[in-house]
Amino acid sequence: MTEKTFHINLTCEDRPGIVAAVTTELAGLGANIAESNQFWDRQTNRFFMRIAVTAPQGVERDGLLRALEPAIARFDMKTAIADTARRPKIIIMVSKFDHALLHLLYQIRVGWLDAEVVAVVSNHGDSRSTAEMEGIPYHCWKVTKDNKQEQEAKLLDLFKETGADLVILARYMQVLSNDLSNRLYGKVINIHHSFLPSFKGAKPYHQAHERGVKLIGATAHYVTPDLDEGPIIEQETERVTHAMTAEDFVATGRDIESRVLARAVKLHLENRVMMNGHKTVVFG
Amino acid sequence: MTEKTFHINLTCEDRPGIVAAVTTELAGLGANIAESNQFWDRQTNRFFMRIAVTAPQGVERDGLLRALEPAIARFDMKTAIADTARRPKIIIMVSKFDHALLHLLYQIRVGWLDAEVVAVVSNHGDSRSTAEMEGIPYHCWKVTKDNKQEQEAKLLDLFKETGADLVILARYMQVLSNDLSNRLYGKVINIHHSFLPSFKGAKPYHQAHERGVKLIGATAHYVTPDLDEGPIIEQETERVTHAMTAEDFVATGRDIESRVLARAVKLHLENRVMMNGHKTVVFG
Amino acid sequence: MTEKTFHINLTCEDRPGIVAAVTTELAGLGANIAESNQFWDRQTNRFFMRIAVTAPQGVERDGLLRALEPAIARFDMKTAIADTARRPKIIIMVSKFDHALLHLLYQIRVGWLDAEVVAVVSNHGDSRSTAEMEGIPYHCWKVTKDNKQEQEAKLLDLFKETGADLVILARYMQVLSNDLSNRLYGKVINIHHSFLPSFKGAKPYHQAHERGVKLIGATAHYVTPDLDEGPIIEQETERVTHAMTAEDFVATGRDIESRVLARAVKLHLENRVMMNGHKTVVFG
Amino acid sequence: MTEKTFHINLTCEDRPGIVAAVTTELAGLGANIAESNQFWDRQTNRFFMRIAVTAPQGVERDGLLRALEPAIARFDMKTAIADTARRPKIIIMVSKFDHALLHLLYQIRVGWLDAEVVAVVSNHGDSRSTAEMEGIPYHCWKVTKDNKQEQEAKLLDLFKETGADLVILARYMQVLSNDLSNRLYGKVINIHHSFLPSFKGAKPYHQAHERGVKLIGATAHYVTPDLDEGPIIEQETERVTHAMTAEDFVATGRDIESRVLARAVKLHLENRVMMNGHKTVVFG
Repeated sequence: MTEKTFHINLTCEDRPGIVAAVTTELAGLGANIAESNQFWDRQTNRFFMRIAVTAPQGVERDGLLRALEPAIARFDMKTAIADTARRPKIIIMVSKFDHALLHLLYQIRVGWLDAEVVAVVSNHGDSRSTAEMEGIPYHCWKVTKDNKQEQEAKLLDLFKETGADLVILARYMQVLSNDLSNRLYGKVINIHHSFLPSFKGAKPYHQAHERGVKLIGATAHYVTPDLDEGPIIEQETERVTHAMTAEDFVATGRDIESRVLARAVKLHLENRVMMNGHKTVVFG
Repeated sequence: MTEKTFHINLTCEDRPGIVAAVTTELAGLGANIAESNQFWDRQTNRFFMRIAVTAPQGVERDGLLRALEPAIARFDMKTAIADTARRPKIIIMVSKFDHALLHLLYQIRVGWLDAEVVAVVSNHGDSRSTAEMEGIPYHCWKVTKDNKQEQEAKLLDLFKETGADLVILARYMQVLSNDLSNRLYGKVINIHHSFLPSFKGAKPYHQAHERGVKLIGATAHYVTPDLDEGPIIEQETERVTHAMTAEDFVATGRDIESRVLARAVKLHLENRVMMNGHKTVVFG
Repeated sequence: MTEKTFHINLTCEDRPGIVAAVTTELAGLGANIAESNQFWDRQTNRFFMRIAVTAPQGVERDGLLRALEPAIARFDMKTAIADTARRPKIIIMVSKFDHALLHLLYQIRVGWLDAEVVAVVSNHGDSRSTAEMEGIPYHCWKVTKDNKQEQEAKLLDLFKETGADLVILARYMQVLSNDLSNRLYGKVINIHHSFLPSFKGAKPYHQAHERGVKLIGATAHYVTPDLDEGPIIEQETERVTHAMTAEDFVATGRDIESRVLARAVKLHLENRVMMNGHKTVVFG
Repeated sequence: MTEKTFHINLTCEDRPGIVAAVTTELAGLGANIAESNQFWDRQTNRFFMRIAVTAPQGVERDGLLRALEPAIARFDMKTAIADTARRPKIIIMVSKFDHALLHLLYQIRVGWLDAEVVAVVSNHGDSRSTAEMEGIPYHCWKVTKDNKQEQEAKLLDLFKETGADLVILARYMQVLSNDLSNRLYGKVINIHHSFLPSFKGAKPYHQAHERGVKLIGATAHYVTPDLDEGPIIEQETERVTHAMTAEDFVATGRDIESRVLARAVKLHLENRVMMNGHKTVVFG
């Protein structure tokens, strides 16, 4: 058969009738709701919804949008519709530590993540062979104080030329400028190697070791101009002991970071994450 | 204000239009969807839905049911509507170990669980003072091979007389008869002190210790005639070591059991658990 | 039989021969090592050891100490020897939220924690009946800016008079003065209701909710003059979602706090925690 | 400097004086105890100990053994001494699913696991390029009912010729014969893709899905003639939901299996695992 699946995300001020209006239009097209999630933020009276629909042959993204237009207007909704037949395109950025990159590539290879890596960008040469073996274009762009603006311009060009949907900072150790963070708002996911908001900034495992914590963690978040303050998508912690060195924390952390980042990317690519101010709604 | 909140649970064969039909009727009543969850079981093509609605003054359970009747008939739905203003009534059964009982009573006291305990039933006298201090009727019904049928008849009477909604076996060490299990199908939750299906039957912590496992767990499930085979609602595990005795396992297990049971009871009382054959759908 | 068990804790600069010297003396007394843990902190070259020994009839704490004296002198050890036949005495302090208090009392009742509660002290009257039912002296000492010094003096007197070994702040919402923190250094355990160092200070669950974290936690630590900076004994986290309110965080947190505090207290009472500067060594 | 580190593992019937006897000999050689763990199994009165010592220049494995010989004889100890300067050699066996293999190779590459992979053996051709890229000899030995004995003989020859210390079944889907299991007793680690003893045998994730569990897990254990009954080294579980398919369980399981197997292998290679009948003592 030639059914297609679409993800519809919408948000608006909450009031009665939203779900009825949307689902009635979908039923009118013969579309079936495969999955539906919603959240009403009582603090802000904001309503969030994600619907996965299977639509009969001939119903395309444009047709869905047209059918929903009256409801969108009536409730003043922000809407996004994704055609799951179109494979999302991602750019992965990495510095020297490549565990998170390798984990992403593996999860794509076995089909758990559904995405096409259109480029690997690094400020180091280390991962060139990894990228090339997978047939992924590799760009080694060293970053200095002087050329940062220029290199970020190249990244933005690459993003546009490749039609990329998402940039993943898989242990990329350069801070993006405020300007770039704003331009790619909601389209850059970073993995921070601590349980935020603990241990912001550099060398978080060493900070954690110095503090004597009994758990360490990792946090995947959207990048915003406020460093390490972006909306959190996913977190996880694991137990550590006094007998472990800071390097043992780093090694334990590698696994946590890899998993947390991969899960956050999957949630994003499946359109399960919606921005709610500086927080996220995650329809897991 | 005098808004009321209702939980609507429904299940039927999946086909397009279900959500639209139901939510359109709800919108027609001016009811607002506060929360909605659904699940389509592709293996069986079965559809499950739970909606929490806030209805304007004057709309009652009967009115909701009437409004939904055409949709119920059209899609051949099984439906349940709960008025959250009516506090659920529960009977807690316990033998000697009272940690799970105490945890339930505490969670009710602080309001995390919303329920009225209409009776504590035990085959031992140990928890009498606990029950009495909280002003809960306490029934000590010793069970022997000879009087088991009679005692179960008393339990069934108590269930009817008190208008109870749920029986909780909070470490009640007697096995319910097949007959009683069938009569109270879906209305009895047990906590089994192992990670089912491992270590069914008696002394699971000692079995686990003997096997040398590195994690122990607990399982809350509905009671069915097949002992320890009922639909699982909630499970959790915790790490153990070779240095721990079977008694240490028991002590660690107390916390796990208390939490897992309380969470399962909360999910049930909030109508978040739906039976799907011998499995459950849990809208957490 | 009349064997007795002792816990010997010692710390000194690391060099060869420490274990041999100590265990040779113990063997000379006919004492058997039931459990032994050690840690060499390479950063500071500090050595830490805990030994649980069963000693034959007639060997007492003093005899052990005398036997170990040459080794203590030779390696310049700090040593503590606890006779497990002597039940530790504890003072529990609480404000309004009583879940952590109740959990401690329950764990003592079932024998998981081995301690005698010599007093419950509160700045509120709420837990009086709980304490009295267990036959524990209850002191309601309101604290104001004006009488704080006086009330702390009463606490210190109580500590001395009762021969208490440990003060537990089981959600006691008053900050101890620097002076008292110093006088009771290493003898006061607090439960902070966040995953430290995140969300220090007041209303941590509300801070966490505002930040949009995906995990919340609790931290048991020794009290020092630096608020929320004391050596961490135990931590744990649990998953939360965007759909939970700050109050849901509080409810989830109650269980975490109760468990984390009880585990930290057990570790301390079993002499498994040793101070290592502003960190702890925990022989779990 | 030229200090060397050795791991000394010993087990014997428990009685006073063991630790003193052993550590006195070590002190006599000027060896320093970097780490020490012990366990007294009260059920069987068996004593287990692992000591990591740094020995001064000139002290070798033979010298340590000679020094300990009187103690070994006196207490009838079973002893093993490993020179950590000698890198352990491992053979990894794999069928089609290569996630656990890749994770092991990665952990070796970054130094978290210290081992030399002397061969990858498979009954399929899939991982040939992976092995060859790392310069590891690859053997594709198809197994049928008729040639099983012959292929196992080749494996045993390979084990001897390469001087291998450990065989790792990293999702190798053939069952080893009783004869081979016995010959390599304690030297073969398997990852079973369930939380044993639940879901032994084939397709455990599908069994788990059918049962409707809320957690899935993985178990690393030594291989014995009793299939899926070998001594457990390490286990872990992760949460699943009704909304996940059996294939989602498989995908979630990949991460768990990879981590659990890698941790078990690390524990084994660091001589932290000791057999205690059909259980293990794990000095983590």
